Amino acid sequence: MKPLGPIPPGFSSIGGELAVQGIAARELVERAGDTPCFVYSSDMLRARVASLRAAMPDRLAIHYAMKANPFAPVLKLMASLVDGIDIASAGELALAQAAGMDASKISFAGPGKRDRDLEAAIAAGVTLNLESEGECERALAIGQRIGVQPRLAVRVNPEFDLRGSGMRMGGGAKPFGIDQARVPALVRHILAEGAHWRGFHIFAGSQALDADAIIDTQGKTLDLAAQLADEAGAVPEHLNLGGGMGIPYFPGDTPVDIARVGAALGERFAALPDTLRDTHFAMELGRWLVGEAGVYLTRIVDRKTSHGELYLVTDGGLHHQLAASGNFGTVVRRNYPVAIASHFDADPSEEANVVGCLCTPLDRLADKAHLPEAQVGDLVAVFCAGAYGATASPADFLGHGKAAEILV
Amino acid sequence: MKPLGPIPPGFSSIGGELAVQGIAARELVERAGDTPCFVYSSDMLRARVASLRAAMPDRLAIHYAMKANPFAPVLKLMASLVDGIDIASAGELALAQAAGMDASKISFAGPGKRDRDLEAAIAAGVTLNLESEGECERALAIGQRIGVQPRLAVRVNPEFDLRGSGMRMGGGAKPFGIDQARVPALVRHILAEGAHWRGFHIFAGSQALDADAIIDTQGKTLDLAAQLADEAGAVPEHLNLGGGMGIPYFPGDTPVDIARVGAALGERFAALPDTLRDTHFAMELGRWLVGEAGVYLTRIVDRKTSHGELYLVTDGGLHHQLAASGNFGTVVRRNYPVAIASHFDADPSEEANVVGCLCTPLDRLADKAHLPEAQVGDLVAVFCAGAYGATASPADFLGHGKAAEILV
Repeated sequence: MKPLGPIPPGFSSIGGELAVQGIAARELVERAGDTPCFVYSSDMLRARVASLRAAMPDRLAIHYAMKANPFAPVLKLMASLVDGIDIASAGELALAQAAGMDASKISFAGPGKRDRDLEAAIAAGVTLNLESEGECERALAIGQRIGVQPRLAVRVNPEFDLRGSGMRMGGGAKPFGIDQARVPALVRHILAEGAHWRGFHIFAGSQALDADAIIDTQGKTLDLAAQLADEAGAVPEHLNLGGGMGIPYFPGDTPVDIARVGAALGERFAALPDTLRDTHFAMELGRWLVGEAGVYLTRIVDRKTSHGELYLVTDGGLHHQLAASGNFGTVVRRNYPVAIASHFDADPSEEANVVGCLCTPLDRLADKAHLPEAQVGDLVAVFCAGAYGATASPADFLGHGKAAEILV
Repeated sequence: MKPLGPIPPGFSSIGGELAVQGIAARELVERAGDTPCFVYSSDMLRARVASLRAAMPDRLAIHYAMKANPFAPVLKLMASLVDGIDIASAGELALAQAAGMDASKISFAGPGKRDRDLEAAIAAGVTLNLESEGECERALAIGQRIGVQPRLAVRVNPEFDLRGSGMRMGGGAKPFGIDQARVPALVRHILAEGAHWRGFHIFAGSQALDADAIIDTQGKTLDLAAQLADEAGAVPEHLNLGGGMGIPYFPGDTPVDIARVGAALGERFAALPDTLRDTHFAMELGRWLVGEAGVYLTRIVDRKTSHGELYLVTDGGLHHQLAASGNFGTVVRRNYPVAIASHFDADPSEEANVVGCLCTPLDRLADKAHLPEAQVGDLVAVFCAGAYGATASPADFLGHGKAAEILV
């Protein structure tokens, strides 16, 4: 038996079935058209943003890193709830604009921006988070050529990283941002060239659950921003503190204590150095905002045994749930929160392997899980499917096609 | 410095640039329309199939497992070169039929076939490789309902596996096939129900490079097929031996000695037991047939240093090359064969990290590689991109879009 990750709060049951926002699983599948499907809850998204606003100082703006979930209805809702959107490609720029987000509230990070990406962003009035001196030169030249003053923030590669983060984005050699020692010179150069210097983007890691680590990193980020601004002799209009807050996926994981993070940030905001007194601060979150608000529903198409082990074979799989299958950014496979959606209230009574329909042993949704008895036709739910699911998975693999997505 | 995987044979240079089938990299990119792109060589595909036919006994049919590369022009060419196509979904069925492959030469494996998938396959006259007793019942019922005699092979979960294989498909509890002990009863049942029993599909593993391991597995596969047929009291019309042969990706890997595999198989075919005397044999290969015939070309958009390390940032990445980035089915990341396509003849002169354009530290195409000096605008080639590249990667991740694909 292997444990399952914790099911996020907010789900209920109707007639024994899993319900999202008061709608039972079977009805959700009908609305989506078929299994497998992703279901996102607008109530949960709204509640999540509201809980963050309640915990954080008023002064902190909330940005949505749309790479976590760019599904158009989700993006449109998020655009109405947050203060800005962070994009990672020209494709995301088009989606963000289509979702109604004003370009002045969009910032564009990513180490491989092409000239045409830079031009689209500069023309639109998006803030570029510069990843290198070379990118800065290209942006300045494009701005000159098209007659638009570029809005340029400097992404800093800090010398610290975020302790306990699932992905370290800072500390040592990195492809992201500009080593902090070289940042002041670049800021002076941007100002000398007449571009609009927007400030800093300092992002030290993601998917951390430890409030102390996040508090520590936010403190260092504020210190570093002040130091770099002093060295550059310029006051940053804006500071993107990054995100860093993760969600519980695995057995034993616990949610970030956002009240503590918010209180600590409030204390820091109350004692800012002069350089940052008028700075706008933002936290940029993807997974934390949307991850728990989504569930992936897939149907059992076969129930079989092999050498005494039970397999529940579903019509979904790693082509929609790469990370849940244990094949994206994890070394040791652990179980996500998974449930038999058709019998959400029932007590577990058997050990089962939940696998996908792909013809590869990599395609596992739950290993040796203790679950209620399930039959062919029953629905399985994979939770924490709101972020890095549909678009972070190889949907074309083996020709099964994309999953449907709905926002309820 | 970390070594790079071995560049497959057959590539040349023109004016210092990498050339595929006599066409220089820049020209290939022009034909594809843009970077990043996948380029597949028809000459290499033809030569590969021909070399296999030359090495294998005449009696062995060659099947193409199209999951490796379903790009329509590649599939059409492969359909003209091989004796059968193995599909893994109803989506692949449609593609295989569009490529001109006769349904009688198509077989369908995969643990999660839905009723509608089974119906499409039975109606078309495709052979189903049955993965469970339950799937067999569903297929028989559908055949009755639509008035078509289903063509049913039994996929066996053998008790042996393929030594040294990258993916074990047999040996112990597995979601694939039916445990060998239960197979004879299922065959008798299929015959009693009046379906067309096609034979066995026995697949013990994939991506092995050791000829001895493959020979050993093929021998055991023939023994097992004969034993199961004897126990069932029926002569199999067809035996799919699986594939198993891999390609070298990593430093130190060497190609499978196909001459030895073919010679050993020839010896076995010369001394078949009575039960298998009239059986048709097939080997089903995906990666081995197409993997080395493809190259992924991506352009350097930034050249930057961080803490003394050089980064070449490209416009490609793990959204097209998930396995090359080390994030699909591998525990320890090792370098694929990668080269500076614009300076294919030049001697290495610097250590560089080649990274993709995605804003995640997972997006690495080569770590600490010894490469010729490369500048912004130069092309990078990732080899072994013919299999499990475009469709086995999360193309929608971060909104950069799919790569172009061309067959030359």
